[in-house]
Amino acid sequence: MASTIFTRIINGEIPSYKLAEDERHYAFLDISPLQRGHALVVPKREVDYLFDLEDEELAGLMTFARKVALAIEKSVPCRRVGVAVIGLEVPHAHVHLVPLHGLHDLDFSRPKLSIPADEMAALAATIRENL
Amino acid sequence: MASTIFTRIINGEIPSYKLAEDERHYAFLDISPLQRGHALVVPKREVDYLFDLEDEELAGLMTFARKVALAIEKSVPCRRVGVAVIGLEVPHAHVHLVPLHGLHDLDFSRPKLSIPADEMAALAATIRENL
Repeated sequence: MASTIFTRIINGEIPSYKLAEDERHYAFLDISPLQRGHALVVPKREVDYLFDLEDEELAGLMTFARKVALAIEKSVPCRRVGVAVIGLEVPHAHVHLVPLHGLHDLDFSRPKLSIPADEMAALAATIRENL
Repeated sequence: MASTIFTRIINGEIPSYKLAEDERHYAFLDISPLQRGHALVVPKREVDYLFDLEDEELAGLMTFARKVALAIEKSVPCRRVGVAVIGLEVPHAHVHLVPLHGLHDLDFSRPKLSIPADEMAALAATIRENL
């Protein structure tokens, strides 16, 4: 089976604005964000659906996601960091962390932002500092 | 502090289409659903934000949510059950489980469905049977 795009990102074959990594998880900025600071958290193990993870893996993923979410909340003006798992596009489970201003902000059919590379790099650095 | 609406639902002061309950969690159908089968999973402990939960509570909540999500997936035609945590409206952490057909389905600003009571009751019964 070919690797998913997320596995290729984790392996460094595709560049990413990395936010955090541990033995089992990887977090990076979504390059087509709904909001500034929108990040993805993925388990390194390739499972299709969030709820395909074992209990203990699911727990580990959420604990890791929490740390990243709190760092995003410190780094970007927002009311709260929302969480979404959709899983219709890439067959590798991933948690979206999206800084929210209103109820509309989790609509994934909305046009995505395009943020210049230097701003993305600066944003990633700020979030890493706030971890 | 007054109880949240979710605590009043858990306590039975406000009726709900209950799907599942254990010592620390409660799941029920959202009465203003985005999709048929849209459910809410809440920790009985009143915390405002999902990531205010302790690691072990967060793990327990997600494990409980997984069981409910899989039962919904068996009960309602959908591509997958999506997960969303927004937390801008009720100050009691809750996980939305939403049967998804497309990317638009997690837009919480969309008009909600109104499903007759007998259909809601039948749907809840089906989901409970599939737990």
